[in-house]
Formats: sequence, C-alpha cells, structure tokens
Amino acid sequence: MPPRSSSASRRAAPSRTSRGPSAPAVPQVTSDRRRVVIENVRPQVDCGRLPAKAAVGVAVEVTADIVADGHDLLMALLRPRPAAAPADQAERIPLRLLVNDHWSAWFTPTTMGLWEFELLAMADDWGSFARDLERRHAAGQDLSVEFLVGVQMAERRLALEPGPADTAALRMLRDRVGETALPDAERLAAVLDPQAAQLMHRTADWSRAGGAGPFPLFVDRRLAQFSAWYEMFPRSEGGDPATGRSGTFGTAARRLPEIAAMGFDIVYLPPIHPIGRTHRKGANNTLEAGPGDPGSPWAIGSAEGGHDSIHPDLGTVEDFKAFVAEAGRVGLEVAIDLAIQCSPDHPWVKDHPEWFHHRPDGSIRYAENPPKRYQDIYPVNFETADRAALDAELLRITLLWVERGITVFRVDNPHTKPLPFWLWLIGEVRSRHPEVIFLAEAFTRPRIMERLARFGFTQSYTYFTWRNGRQELAEYLTELSQTTVVDYMRPNFWTNTPDILHHFLQHGGVPAFRLRAVLAALCCPSWGMYSGYELGENVAVREGSEEYLDSEKYQLRPRDWSTPTTLAPFITNLNAIRRRHRAAIAQPRTLRVHHVDGDSLLCVSRADHEKRDVLLVIVNLDPHNPQSGFTWLDLEVLGIDPERAYELHDELAGEVYTWYGPRNFVRLDPGWQPAHVLHVRQAPNP
Amino acid sequence: MPPRSSSASRRAAPSRTSRGPSAPAVPQVTSDRRRVVIENVRPQVDCGRLPAKAAVGVAVEVTADIVADGHDLLMALLRPRPAAAPADQAERIPLRLLVNDHWSAWFTPTTMGLWEFELLAMADDWGSFARDLERRHAAGQDLSVEFLVGVQMAERRLALEPGPADTAALRMLRDRVGETALPDAERLAAVLDPQAAQLMHRTADWSRAGGAGPFPLFVDRRLAQFSAWYEMFPRSEGGDPATGRSGTFGTAARRLPEIAAMGFDIVYLPPIHPIGRTHRKGANNTLEAGPGDPGSPWAIGSAEGGHDSIHPDLGTVEDFKAFVAEAGRVGLEVAIDLAIQCSPDHPWVKDHPEWFHHRPDGSIRYAENPPKRYQDIYPVNFETADRAALDAELLRITLLWVERGITVFRVDNPHTKPLPFWLWLIGEVRSRHPEVIFLAEAFTRPRIMERLARFGFTQSYTYFTWRNGRQELAEYLTELSQTTVVDYMRPNFWTNTPDILHHFLQHGGVPAFRLRAVLAALCCPSWGMYSGYELGENVAVREGSEEYLDSEKYQLRPRDWSTPTTLAPFITNLNAIRRRHRAAIAQPRTLRVHHVDGDSLLCVSRADHEKRDVLLVIVNLDPHNPQSGFTWLDLEVLGIDPERAYELHDELAGEVYTWYGPRNFVRLDPGWQPAHVLHVRQAPNP
Repeated sequence: MPPRSSSASRRAAPSRTSRGPSAPAVPQVTSDRRRVVIENVRPQVDCGRLPAKAAVGVAVEVTADIVADGHDLLMALLRPRPAAAPADQAERIPLRLLVNDHWSAWFTPTTMGLWEFELLAMADDWGSFARDLERRHAAGQDLSVEFLVGVQMAERRLALEPGPADTAALRMLRDRVGETALPDAERLAAVLDPQAAQLMHRTADWSRAGGAGPFPLFVDRRLAQFSAWYEMFPRSEGGDPATGRSGTFGTAARRLPEIAAMGFDIVYLPPIHPIGRTHRKGANNTLEAGPGDPGSPWAIGSAEGGHDSIHPDLGTVEDFKAFVAEAGRVGLEVAIDLAIQCSPDHPWVKDHPEWFHHRPDGSIRYAENPPKRYQDIYPVNFETADRAALDAELLRITLLWVERGITVFRVDNPHTKPLPFWLWLIGEVRSRHPEVIFLAEAFTRPRIMERLARFGFTQSYTYFTWRNGRQELAEYLTELSQTTVVDYMRPNFWTNTPDILHHFLQHGGVPAFRLRAVLAALCCPSWGMYSGYELGENVAVREGSEEYLDSEKYQLRPRDWSTPTTLAPFITNLNAIRRRHRAAIAQPRTLRVHHVDGDSLLCVSRADHEKRDVLLVIVNLDPHNPQSGFTWLDLEVLGIDPERAYELHDELAGEVYTWYGPRNFVRLDPGWQPAHVLHVRQAPNP
Repeated sequence: MPPRSSSASRRAAPSRTSRGPSAPAVPQVTSDRRRVVIENVRPQVDCGRLPAKAAVGVAVEVTADIVADGHDLLMALLRPRPAAAPADQAERIPLRLLVNDHWSAWFTPTTMGLWEFELLAMADDWGSFARDLERRHAAGQDLSVEFLVGVQMAERRLALEPGPADTAALRMLRDRVGETALPDAERLAAVLDPQAAQLMHRTADWSRAGGAGPFPLFVDRRLAQFSAWYEMFPRSEGGDPATGRSGTFGTAARRLPEIAAMGFDIVYLPPIHPIGRTHRKGANNTLEAGPGDPGSPWAIGSAEGGHDSIHPDLGTVEDFKAFVAEAGRVGLEVAIDLAIQCSPDHPWVKDHPEWFHHRPDGSIRYAENPPKRYQDIYPVNFETADRAALDAELLRITLLWVERGITVFRVDNPHTKPLPFWLWLIGEVRSRHPEVIFLAEAFTRPRIMERLARFGFTQSYTYFTWRNGRQELAEYLTELSQTTVVDYMRPNFWTNTPDILHHFLQHGGVPAFRLRAVLAALCCPSWGMYSGYELGENVAVREGSEEYLDSEKYQLRPRDWSTPTTLAPFITNLNAIRRRHRAAIAQPRTLRVHHVDGDSLLCVSRADHEKRDVLLVIVNLDPHNPQSGFTWLDLEVLGIDPERAYELHDELAGEVYTWYGPRNFVRLDPGWQPAHVLHVRQAPNP
C-alpha cells in the first residue's frame, strides 16, 4: 500500500506550476498532533515559497531535524517526484540518522522541471521493540509476554492488507516470534533479523507518520549545473582594425570548432544589437569616438533597431541563426547578453519616452553614479506608469531570442533592475521554456547576489576573481558548498571578463593564468573565460586598473590564435578532466577544503556523493615560487580507509603516487606545474 | 496619513488569537514586484507560524536583511502592535542599517498577549537625492535642474495631503530649494538639513513600500522573563521523620516569609497529590518502602484521589488556597508540578484503563527503560483510541489548578509526552489565561528542548548544571543569547534540583556553591535553587551519582535554617542585585562574553539595550585556587568611551575601581570572593 501523505502535508498548497511572483502557500511543517516533528528541512528557500535548485543527474542532499517524544527509535522517508506526477508515485528513500536528531538522504532527479519533495517520519515500533527485547534478554528477564508484542505488530501490519509476498512474510515472522515451543534465543533471532526490520519498516502504517512539505525544487537540465563558458566578441573575429571592417557571424563561426575543441560548452557573445552613435565611446573608453570606432556593444540601439535587432555589421537574423546552428553542430550552445539599457538612439527613446527617467527640464536622465556620468547610456525607468507595457516588451524580446535559438542568457547588471522583476521575467520564460539558463552578472553586495539567485537566476558570477589568497579561497569555497547558499546559488567562476583583468593576472605571468584556470575549472561546477586568456593577455590600461589596455569593449581585437605559447592545450586538458570527472566536479555539496602546511598551497577535494569518483586538487597559489608542505587529509571525505594505501593518478602530469594516511608531502613549482589534480583510488577491501 | 501595509502583507493571514495546533498561514515576505525586498526577519519562529517570545517591558530586537536594486539609499520602519489593535495604530520605529544590508530596531512591548509586527521598507528618495546633490556640488556640476528634482519630491508629498504642520513645512522646504535667487550653497544646505530629512521621511508615500509580516510575538508578563525560583517540599517543613508526621501547608507556609526575604519570586512545590502505595519506593530509592516511608510525590494518585486532589497529609484544598494566599501576601507566586504519570493506585487506572499501555497479557505496562523498570509509575498512553477524553481531562486538571490560584506550572518530563500535545495544551490554557507560565523540565537532546520551547513553554531548564568549565560556559551563554534560540527559548539556570547534585558541588565546598549561584543568578534572566542549597548540602547517595543522600524525594527532610554558615545572606544579596539591575539582567540579547587571561576566569557583561544599566560579572570558576589575569573588554558593548576612564562599583564587595581601556587586572580568591559583580559607569562626556 502506498503511504498516504500526512494530514499536515495534505493541508498544504497544491502544486505550483509556475514561478510567478504571486505568493504561493508555504509548505507545512508538521503542526498537527502526530508524535513526530520534522523541522529545519533543507533544501528550502524562503520558507518553501521559492524552489531550491537541482539538476538532472546530480544528487541532492535532503536533511532535516526529526524529533519525537520518548525513547522510541524513529524512521523517515524522503518522497521526491516531479510536481506534475501523482503523489503516490513519489520514490521512497529512507533517511539516515547522522547525529543529534539530524537526518539525511540523497536523491537524483531524473527529469527537468518543477519537482516537489515531502518528508515522512514516525516511530519505528519494530526497531524499538527489537532493541528493548535484546536488552531484556541480556538482563535475563522473562520475555514470554514481550514476544507477543512483536506478534501484535505483525498482526497490525497484516490488517493493512499488504501485497501477497509481504503478507506471507509477515505471517511467517509472526508465527516464528510467537512460537512458544522455540527457545527464546531463536525467537529473539527472528526479531533481530535485518530482513524482518526491512519488512516491518516497509509494511508500517505510514498514514500515521508526521510529514513536512511539499517543498519545491526546480530541476534544471545538466548544463545549468555543469558548464564551461567562453566569451568572445564576434566582431573581432575576422575584423580588421586598420580598415575598421567588422567581423561577422560568418567569420566568427570559423572560430567555433576551436572553442569546442578546447572543451567549452557555451560560447557567450556580448550584445549583438545595433550600437548607438550619440556620445559613443572611443578606444580605451575615451569620451569622443573617432569615425572608425565601433562603440561599446552595451550602448544598445540605433536607427537600425534595438534589442530585437542585430547589428548590420554582424549580419542578418539568418546569419545569426546560421552561427547558432554551426555552434550546435560542433557541440556548443550560444549565450547572448540581456542588457536592459539603451543608447540615446534606441528606438524606445522615441517610441516609449515614458520608459525612461526624465529630469524636471524634460531631458532624459542618462546613467550616473554622481559625480560620474555615462552619457551614452539611458537606464530604463522601472517606476514608469507604463510598467505593464515595458514588462511585456522585455518579455517579448527575451522570448524572441529564444525563438531564434538562444537557450542561455548572460544578464548584464541585473541588480540595477528591480529584483522581483527577475522573479517574474525568469518565471515567465521558464514556464514556457524550462531549459533556458540565466546567468546573473551582478558584482555587488552578498545579500543582493543571493536574492537574485533565489529569485530564479540559474547561475551567478561570483567574487572568485578577487579571491586569490588561500584563506579567502578556502572560506569562499566552503561558503558556496557548505552553507544554505548551495541550495539556491550556482556559482560560475570566471578567470577574467572584458571588465576584469585582476592585478594577480597582470603581474603573475603565465603561472598565474594556469593556476587560476585550474581553480576556476576544477573547484566550481561551472567556469568561464574571456577570449585572450589563453594568450596570456595581461596588460591593463593603466596601473591600478582592472580594465584591459585597448579593451575589446571599444575596438576590434582580432587575435593570432596560432601562437605557440598559447595555453589552449592546457585549457583543453582542464576541460577534458572536467568531463572525465563530471560526477565529482558537478556535485557542489561534497567539496571540502583540506589542510596543507604553509600559506600558499590550497587543497580541495571533489567527489560525487557516493565517493565513486574522487579528485584531490592541490594548487600552488604563489605564481612566483615553488611551495611545498605536508597535507593533512580528511580521509573519510575521500572515502579512503586510513589503514590501507591508496593510489593517486595525477591527471595533469600523468604521474602516479601511492600514499598512506592523511599526511603526505607535496611540492609544486609554478614554472613547471601549477597544481596536482589527483584522481584518488583505493583497491576494494580484500 | 498612516502608512498602509503593503499588498504583500495584506495578503497574509488575519491575526491569530490562539496558539492552537491548526496550521496558521505564514507571514508573507515581499514577493510582489515592489523594489525593496525584506528577508531573514527575526524574531521569526517556524517561518512565522508560531509566535516568538517577548515580555512586557523588555526590549526586543527586530532585524532583517533589506535589499533593493540600484544605488538608492533605503529607509525602513518597524510597526509593532497588539494583534487585536487596528493596524494603523502600530508604532512607527525606524530601523537602522548596521552592516551589509542588515537592519535593526528595538521595541518594548507594553501589554501582555499576542502581538504582531510588520516591516516596511522603500527607497529613500530624498536621502539619495541629497547625497547625490552634495556629490554633484562638490564636483562643480550645474545643479539648477537637480534642485527641481527636490522640489518635485516635496510636491509629491504635498499631494498626499499630510497634516497642516507638515504641509507648511513641506511648502517652506519646497520654496527654499526651488528659490533660484539663492546661491547654490544655501539651497543645498536646505536639502541637507537633518530636519528636512525627517520631514521627507515622515511624509513619504509609505503605501509604496515593500513589506514583510505580520510576524507573531507572544508577549508574556514580566515574571515570565525575569524570575527567581525556590523549590521546596512542603511535607518536610514542619515534618518529623522520627514519627513520620508530615509537614502541612500550614507548617510550610511559615517558611514563606524567609523565602520571600531571600528575594525569590516563585516557590515551586513538587507534586502535592496523593501518593501511591503499590510498589512505593523507600528511603534512598529502595524498592521496598517501610510503613513510615512517605513515597515519591511523583508517584501520583491513590485511593484518596489523583491529579485534581491534594495529599491528605498536606491538608485540604482550602489549606492549599490559604498557602497560596500567604505566598501572595509576602510577594511569592506558587508553582506546582504538572507530572502526567500515575501510580498504579491512581483513580484513572480503574476509571480509564484505556489511557494506559497494555501488555498482550492484559497487564498495564509500567515505566521502563529496558532493562530498567519503574514499577511504581504507569506512563499515560497518548496513542490511546480515547485520546480526546484524555486530552480533555488533562486540560481540565490544569485549568482546575489555575482556578485554585496557580499561575505557574513546572512540567515534569514534557519530552516523554507527544511534543505537539504541549502546543495544544499550553495554547488552550493561555488563550484563557495568558498570564500562566509553563517551565519545561526536559533534560534531553537539544533539538527536542528547542521544539518544546517553540511549541509554547514559557521557560526551559537547561544544561547549565553540567557546564562548569570556562569554554563550555562561554559557548553556552553565547548560544542562548546570540543565536535564534533567544527568539523562543527562555533558559532558567538551576544550581541544583532534587535529582541533580553535580559533582562540582559535591567536591567544591562552599566556594563552589557561591560561584554557581552567582553564575545562575546573574548570567540568566531566570534562575532557580532547590532548598538545602543555602545550607551547602553536598553529600551524594554514592560517589559518581548526582542523587542526594537521603533524598527528599523519598523521605522527610526538615532542616535547621538558622545555622550560622547559611548562604542565605549571600543569596539575598544576589537577588537584590538582580532586582536593582533588572533592566540589565532581564535582557537576554545583549549578554556578551569578554576575554580574560587564564582558563578559570569567566567575564560576562549584562546590559539593557540602551546600555544605561551595565554590569560586568567576572567569576573565578576554580573553587579551590585564587585566579588572576588581565581582562580584554569589548568597550563598545559596555558603552564605554575607550579614551576616558570609567568607574566600577563592586556590588558584592562594596568596593569601587577606576579602570581605563580594555585591559585591567583582576584577581579572585575563592575563599574570600567568588566573583566581581561590577556596575559599570562612565561620567557623561564633558
């Protein structure tokens, strides 16, 4: 008989099928009078009003504190299912007691879309009976009446009319436990038989269980959880700065096979729309553009069109579709930029002046961070009286690009638009196209970045670029994997962006580029790189700035990819390691930082939740000097028996080591090898 | 115009008037499309389904993370009110930004009963305008159009038709800011005037604010938050072990003035009901009682009656009422024990055998923790089919004692009864009698103790008795004051109970008794002591046991209170300090542990939330040796200017010290003085 959900959970809200902004009811934690109380359920976002994040094929850990009165043992079930599936088809996964009334179970969603899970828990009558019976027997007490308690438990289960096999098994168990002709020891053995425990657990009257939930979980496709991004400006690829001739989707498409060969999954293009002329910025962000200056792609809109148009220099909509098709052919998805802002020449400025901020003199207010002025950009006014039309237009253009083949959006500065707008927009898009991925480019305060993630962004840029020291990296990796953040925020570690060339890269040489790529690619399920990184481009516009010299934001930057010093093979290797160890790299919850001596070595383990695929990544964070020290590994996290040797295969260097116990010596010379990437294996117990 | 609550909060549940077990709707955190999002609101229990705890006259801190898009400054209001009061009568308390989008406000409830609070937050248009205007001015930009932005803001507020005074002030401000004949600097000064900020804050259109709540808060009377308990067995007081003559309510009442004079608030009596004869325990918990053994009061019920009856040896209901009246006359409230269990002779056993567990042979199951057996006790079976009648009877007897003058219950082993039962029972009692206090005697695992507190227990016994080292005390005090536990659990620190004579007291001599009393009385808003503590009774029934020799649970223990070595004067002093510094001691949220050198000194500060009454308690935890060291005080917590000297009056020793800065020498000799109790004062800034 399938367990019914508790009355508590039956009182809860019906399944939600969209993530719209209206207030869904909150899942119910047991508050009726059942004995068992389930609380602190994770993953749970905003008291269950918003879905936590999961992905197809990547296991999720569900934990809860489960308590009851008295001394009974408890038993608990996790019941996950697609929200649209009938409740009785939910899987039945036993939770395991970890420590201090804290229980855990893992499950792996199999399909994309909204899921729900409930928890059920009740007193384990049989387990408690068996435990007590054993103690009574050990104390030499008379058990004759106690055995009958077990018989009654079997009888009660039989009255629930389980299937024929369980019925037969229950009768056998009942008869054996109740058989007075048998010696106590044999009857006790029948009670203590693990198969009896499973039978009695399975056939218990779960309708009497306390419940919690349903809690929503949005299950994304695999790419949402595990992705390598490559950012490129298509106008540079095949462009000619001397003549001002722009590259096109046609010329840029020729680069796609190389990007795919490096192992990337997504190629991300900055805005591809017509670029404004008014107050256009020149090379290196100068205020006056020359006649040949192409302008910043983020100054969106001109007489040629706005957010629904393509820059004529890049080609037509058909050319764009061909580019997307070619990307698909070589195994890449194309991400475009969703930047809700306009150049003064954007068609909206004429057609919908009410969508912009107006100064008291009637002029439109350009972007400012007083006293700084950005006269080439008009921010959109979300406090417009015409908000409904603005929203409708923003949804229209997003869906238009989905129709043109785009399934991934990198959203520019989402934190300068109303945060609940994203809950609405992303909800609307994903209720139609649950496969669409939104990456939040919000470099701002932590609470805002977290809120954007909870409101629906699939992935988030992070502070990774600015975390270069051991302590700060260890803390950040721990925060992202071991706190509630992991329930809703998927970090994407970028080594660089067109806006961010970190001082560490400017001055660390090639070793810095290599070690940062190792950290990004192997310490995070998703990572990204802006083109030119593989060439070690490291010249800032001026000392103290994170802007590139001759930034591609303002000019064409065709590159010679064939240079022999390219890091492309190294990056290819990293992405290949990622794919070989996808089970370990895609799982964020099991990441752990281990101790190593010294201040410049970082030791991180990655593993799938069953520890079948375990990697140990040890990085020398000092790009200038060799570093060495002893590890102090948490072997349990690695699934390693401390009493037996284990083998480590270095996936970067190709070497094999045999280690024993937690303490092992490592030495890394940045000129030679930035890191150990060790696949950890131990022969099965003999 | 009173602010309207946001649409989000208007969608939330109507006020709850009972704490019954049905599932109330959860308060809504903003999820509509307003710009400002309020989250992580505290105090908030079970997502707002259950009330947090507060008390009349004791300030509560409300905190939240508040975020919005963009660069605008924000402003936020806390609006608390009795749940029955109209929403527009809620107070308007501005929240203050602490750090990292975390905001705080304090408020002090003034009446007992269910309260609710909401939070409102919105962009501070005027504040942001003023900040930007100042920056523009500093950069020498033209401000002529910008001033008009300020004029528009004033106009918008005038359109909301505020009161006449605000209308006049807004017009003046508008005219001054808009006056082109004035120099920029003067117009800017008008904008930056703090009074202008207050005016514009007050008259803003708060109907556009984002909201969170309402969140429930149960406001208890003062005694719930601040109380000193004294436990006594009335049968001992005036009893005679030689003859077996029991003390009575009449003889016990003679002791009440002394208890009151020591400064206690509550006198707690173990069960006063008839005691069973079957399997009655003898002295020192022996299995066979002699004819003169009075039995354990927790073996409730005999032919003379059960939970609604009084032990004939103690007197009649009228005698009991007289005892309660005498207690009231001297300023004490009487607490009785609510122990839901029965002796085999309890009338329920005959009248309601279905309320007990039955073994398969038809016998009633006595209490067990196999292989241990407690044959004098029958636990009640809450899984009885007749649960409704059982619940009704338990509610009846509780209310009966309330009618007999009892407003405080100490509940015996609540964790061995279904946890949600207490949500129901306490809710039922307090919906009729909100003044009733329930103290949970649950010495069990932390999650269960916390759940009992959340389900409604007013106060809770704690692990204090087993925390004797510095590190464990510091951690425990920090947990109880600085984590979410403080929102729902009120600890009561007991130095001892009839069941718990800690090894530390058995072997620490009088210094141990003194220092533990200081810790209990001054580090916790509520504390308790079992009689005999003042006499230094420290003999256990055997080495390794926490049970008293000749435990009063099983025999009469009249005492000679006039012994000259009594600690009564010391305890009187502690309770007097508590009352003098009630504002500091009653406030749990501001407790902080400060560093002192060495392992045996503990330094704790107590303060009201405005730091008007600040105590520094420094205890030598070593009862055998003098200890000394330097403090390292967090002066900000103490409200002390680090640049100026401050004065400390030792409330125990009567001495006065002058300190300067965080580092000061202390030395405590346990034979002489167990602790410094320092009232910290600094003269106001000259």
